[in-house]
Amino acid sequence: MNSFGNLLRLTTFGESHGPAMGGILDGMPSRVPFDAEAVQQALCRRRPGSGAGRSARKETDIIRILSGVSPEGLTLGTPIGFMIPNVDARPGDYSRLLRPNHADYTYEMKYGIRAVAGGGRASARETASWVAAGAMASMLTRPEGITIRAAVSGVGEWESAEPYSLLPLPAEAMEIVEKAGAAGDSVGGLVSCVVSGVPAGLGEPVFDKLHSRLAAAMMSINAAKCFEYGLGRKAARSYGSETADPFVLPPGASCPEPAGDFSGGIQGGISNGRDIRFTVAFKPTPTLMRDVESFDIEGNRGVIPARGRHDVCVALRAPAVVEAMAALVVADALLASRLPLKSRV
Amino acid sequence: MNSFGNLLRLTTFGESHGPAMGGILDGMPSRVPFDAEAVQQALCRRRPGSGAGRSARKETDIIRILSGVSPEGLTLGTPIGFMIPNVDARPGDYSRLLRPNHADYTYEMKYGIRAVAGGGRASARETASWVAAGAMASMLTRPEGITIRAAVSGVGEWESAEPYSLLPLPAEAMEIVEKAGAAGDSVGGLVSCVVSGVPAGLGEPVFDKLHSRLAAAMMSINAAKCFEYGLGRKAARSYGSETADPFVLPPGASCPEPAGDFSGGIQGGISNGRDIRFTVAFKPTPTLMRDVESFDIEGNRGVIPARGRHDVCVALRAPAVVEAMAALVVADALLASRLPLKSRV
Amino acid sequence: MNSFGNLLRLTTFGESHGPAMGGILDGMPSRVPFDAEAVQQALCRRRPGSGAGRSARKETDIIRILSGVSPEGLTLGTPIGFMIPNVDARPGDYSRLLRPNHADYTYEMKYGIRAVAGGGRASARETASWVAAGAMASMLTRPEGITIRAAVSGVGEWESAEPYSLLPLPAEAMEIVEKAGAAGDSVGGLVSCVVSGVPAGLGEPVFDKLHSRLAAAMMSINAAKCFEYGLGRKAARSYGSETADPFVLPPGASCPEPAGDFSGGIQGGISNGRDIRFTVAFKPTPTLMRDVESFDIEGNRGVIPARGRHDVCVALRAPAVVEAMAALVVADALLASRLPLKSRV
Amino acid sequence: MNSFGNLLRLTTFGESHGPAMGGILDGMPSRVPFDAEAVQQALCRRRPGSGAGRSARKETDIIRILSGVSPEGLTLGTPIGFMIPNVDARPGDYSRLLRPNHADYTYEMKYGIRAVAGGGRASARETASWVAAGAMASMLTRPEGITIRAAVSGVGEWESAEPYSLLPLPAEAMEIVEKAGAAGDSVGGLVSCVVSGVPAGLGEPVFDKLHSRLAAAMMSINAAKCFEYGLGRKAARSYGSETADPFVLPPGASCPEPAGDFSGGIQGGISNGRDIRFTVAFKPTPTLMRDVESFDIEGNRGVIPARGRHDVCVALRAPAVVEAMAALVVADALLASRLPLKSRV
Repeated sequence: MNSFGNLLRLTTFGESHGPAMGGILDGMPSRVPFDAEAVQQALCRRRPGSGAGRSARKETDIIRILSGVSPEGLTLGTPIGFMIPNVDARPGDYSRLLRPNHADYTYEMKYGIRAVAGGGRASARETASWVAAGAMASMLTRPEGITIRAAVSGVGEWESAEPYSLLPLPAEAMEIVEKAGAAGDSVGGLVSCVVSGVPAGLGEPVFDKLHSRLAAAMMSINAAKCFEYGLGRKAARSYGSETADPFVLPPGASCPEPAGDFSGGIQGGISNGRDIRFTVAFKPTPTLMRDVESFDIEGNRGVIPARGRHDVCVALRAPAVVEAMAALVVADALLASRLPLKSRV
Repeated sequence: MNSFGNLLRLTTFGESHGPAMGGILDGMPSRVPFDAEAVQQALCRRRPGSGAGRSARKETDIIRILSGVSPEGLTLGTPIGFMIPNVDARPGDYSRLLRPNHADYTYEMKYGIRAVAGGGRASARETASWVAAGAMASMLTRPEGITIRAAVSGVGEWESAEPYSLLPLPAEAMEIVEKAGAAGDSVGGLVSCVVSGVPAGLGEPVFDKLHSRLAAAMMSINAAKCFEYGLGRKAARSYGSETADPFVLPPGASCPEPAGDFSGGIQGGISNGRDIRFTVAFKPTPTLMRDVESFDIEGNRGVIPARGRHDVCVALRAPAVVEAMAALVVADALLASRLPLKSRV
Repeated sequence: MNSFGNLLRLTTFGESHGPAMGGILDGMPSRVPFDAEAVQQALCRRRPGSGAGRSARKETDIIRILSGVSPEGLTLGTPIGFMIPNVDARPGDYSRLLRPNHADYTYEMKYGIRAVAGGGRASARETASWVAAGAMASMLTRPEGITIRAAVSGVGEWESAEPYSLLPLPAEAMEIVEKAGAAGDSVGGLVSCVVSGVPAGLGEPVFDKLHSRLAAAMMSINAAKCFEYGLGRKAARSYGSETADPFVLPPGASCPEPAGDFSGGIQGGISNGRDIRFTVAFKPTPTLMRDVESFDIEGNRGVIPARGRHDVCVALRAPAVVEAMAALVVADALLASRLPLKSRV
Repeated sequence: MNSFGNLLRLTTFGESHGPAMGGILDGMPSRVPFDAEAVQQALCRRRPGSGAGRSARKETDIIRILSGVSPEGLTLGTPIGFMIPNVDARPGDYSRLLRPNHADYTYEMKYGIRAVAGGGRASARETASWVAAGAMASMLTRPEGITIRAAVSGVGEWESAEPYSLLPLPAEAMEIVEKAGAAGDSVGGLVSCVVSGVPAGLGEPVFDKLHSRLAAAMMSINAAKCFEYGLGRKAARSYGSETADPFVLPPGASCPEPAGDFSGGIQGGISNGRDIRFTVAFKPTPTLMRDVESFDIEGNRGVIPARGRHDVCVALRAPAVVEAMAALVVADALLASRLPLKSRV
């Protein structure tokens, strides 16, 4: 189904080239100051058409809040309905040919029909609603002192030695993107995320482990192929004797704390009070600036012509989406924790 | 909460050293032949105490089915309650000291209390119930021609060049485990899984993508640190021009099919009819044959003495659990698909 | 939360005097002809301002479908987002005084804030979204031969002797409403509903009994105070010997069928193939054409002046809502049944 | 499915004449003193075989708690697994003939199979698990000062003039039951329930209205045919001018309160701080001390012989079940409210 979250639940709708994207964020507590500007800014950050390696689709991404906020700007505790009209929809721009490695074929197999234009609901445009909802979730997490930041930590053959330092992309990496773009090609990438300030004790220990929820959230993002946290994939090469996070007793404290980050901020599915660190790998977009031979679902052969509107490296736009989904997960866990909320006035 | 799945939903209970583990599998269709022996065999495969690198706890893992099956051995369509008594429970075996990188500390922070003996619900013993339920889920998937197989594809510095060939573990890998065991150490590993025979069209396209569900399932397994499918983490290093799965029109067919496995059997969250391929990385167990200094939750210092009962390489026992969780995910998607079920008589 | 249904799930948003009401209907199968006109007609039937005993608020109730339908008018299998703009919103029309027997006080106690204008989300205007979604659900049930009809079966002291004949309201009943209206008073009523053509076998046997779902659905409607089905409240006065529905073997059939309607079409929570019959009692609206002394939440005393915009008998408008909620329940059960859907083309 | 509740969720299993009934109560907060004796006492109160008008089945109803409680008797915050062995199961006691107005026929139509013995999962024996879970839920509500009491308020032609006074059953009513029993007949009844001490603000305002949840809970009970709260069915005969609950400002208070009970303790789906009052009508059990002609599902005719084991008036045993389900609903709403819990130590 099209919902994400338990106590804070986002339900979305919208086809890429339909009238609008949008959703309902249910479960926002009442009396939280609603920062409409922050929502709009988050949408602008995600927006295509700005910078290298990004699709040329022009969307204003102006959000309209339809409910759930009082005239004074406080949440009412009722669901927040919102919509983001599709301004640059071009329904005629697309053919019925199946694009390789897209969702065209699988939608046909599942539904027997699909919104041909622009991938419909499988388009990355769907993530606009996620980013909007994530910005709302941040209204709960930020007052707790929780910060969520993501940055590109790998592009093609380049990979950051310090992925969780969240440094700006070096020239080396941008060159890889530009070179791929110039060749009409696309390239994959890594996005690393650090969630700081999460109190110890968030998350559920068995099936809704905090990292299971993060994994499900991140793997929902278009083009994501890998989720790892803490030691990550390297865990397989590690030895227990080298990866222990000992406990320390901070001066003056009566309760010990874990030191070290091998656990990635989560133990047994529950936050341990340290930074939560995870990385998502994104594949190169399969849409290239090259003619591609293909078929439609009835088996008619054709050629998908090279097109100008695509992202050379989807990872570059992904940090805003990664942050948004992380915010939804963490805010949901925060609500489940029954801790008093600092966000409420 | 302690439930997994939508239409086929497993809810579990049990502390590692309490009277029993167990669960309820709800949503099994009626009139499916119930293979009690297969359930017991799956449990035996997962059982500790057999072979190198495995904990010495002796559990018979005899399951008792409490409901949901007719005297003739057909499912009734009602929930299947089951329990697995804990035979070798040793409640006195454990101290209140917090084991590094375990869930001891985070349970204390979340609940203010914990089942001290053996990690309680955070113990890998919990996965016995998952394996039992997975074997039941396989009663739905196997008659569809779906096979689910997992095997260790990496241990320490060794990594298989063909992870999805599911080859037996080479001597080289076993040596790594034995060496670690002899040194009182532990080592991580990879488990790769191939799900064959899944019809195209299973899975949900947005938040419940088939690979999101698989990721959540796999990251629920104790010690899992990374989930990847298809191109996996290497996707970040890939170029679109090199990773396209073209469509082909099989002779005599009217509908094209994707050729190639870069997508890992899933496109846009929906199965494409090819093998589903994913890999999970497990960290080394943090319990070592060494004395460890630690604290209890009140800050009292102590030493956790070296112990004999632990897994040197949890990845070795993980394939049965990986298969079980995959079966639960695939069977759930199968039920959601509304396809007629071949398993029903 | 603001969602209803399992496989067919409606999530709604909207405050009575905010920009719009609306919702997302998730779970509609693909390739169902979407009858936009039927949706609009259902909304018109529910609309206030037409006829005796109804509020004078003027709403056009023009619905805008935002997603989920192909240009050719077939459902895509994706969520159907829709909105119904509030045209006749009058935010200034309302005071902060707490109206007796409304939700004003309890919203304040729960949320510490409320949408003062018109009851916000507690307004019966919310049911516009339900009626729209119910009309969509009917696109699934109608092709199965299922008909859902509700009618007023009681007003004040008048009560129909044949509630499930769904006869037009007699003059006697209309006089009761008019008299109450003329006196500035309001009056309660009964709405009876018959669901015909439901195949035997729909519904869940324990907690999601078909009549439990209907009860929850009906008690969600504003002003509903009682739900009964089959024998109803009179069951308490009945004897087993007088209320048995014997089985009969229809000529030529090999499978018996229940005869008689004491069960109200549901046995053990599951439809038995006969008409489903239930009745809902609605209280008189507490808003009267009289000045009412009250307080605001801070304890300031005041007088709520007599107003013109209210329903004398909410039961008169309720049949459209009762039918809509019944359609959502039955369509959801139909989807759960895994029967092939006749609605799909 | 076989689960009830959101944050406090009961999932049950068990056929009437299988090895055991049981369930998992998930969501119990940690550090709540677990009163095992109270659970056992609640089961004894519900137990058949004690007193007039009750089935002669002899069940000890000894519950076994399998998880979720520490050795010191505090909840762990983990799921509470429990089982109630079926001691007096008599699988041979039943024929394949379809009992009128039971679930036999509808189970066959839904599942194509059924546990023939004793109605399987449709047996009222299922409510043993509900009563056990309800007693656990009371461990949350009782420390809040919430009391939940139910009593029979009607039997056959007798109906209490003061149903919410919860008076003992008068001789007149007992005579009705005895007379019916002597005639081999059965008779319906009413059970009224009062929930006192619920703080204002519990419940959800739209689809999970507190009374919708109560209605769904009560209509889940075997033989329930009607749910009403507050004015109840009589609401249909009422006038607004006569049923207003005015607000009062208690001496010294700064916040007004509703006075009067026409709302039944719930306004707009949310508790208003006054007693919650509702009534459930139960039909007479369709099993009589008379031979009944019927068919099996293949259309073979036969006679169900008169039997000794049945309840003359199921309403007499229902109060324990009504209280249990109300406790589950109220405890769930309490958890959702985010109020601090007095039950935790």
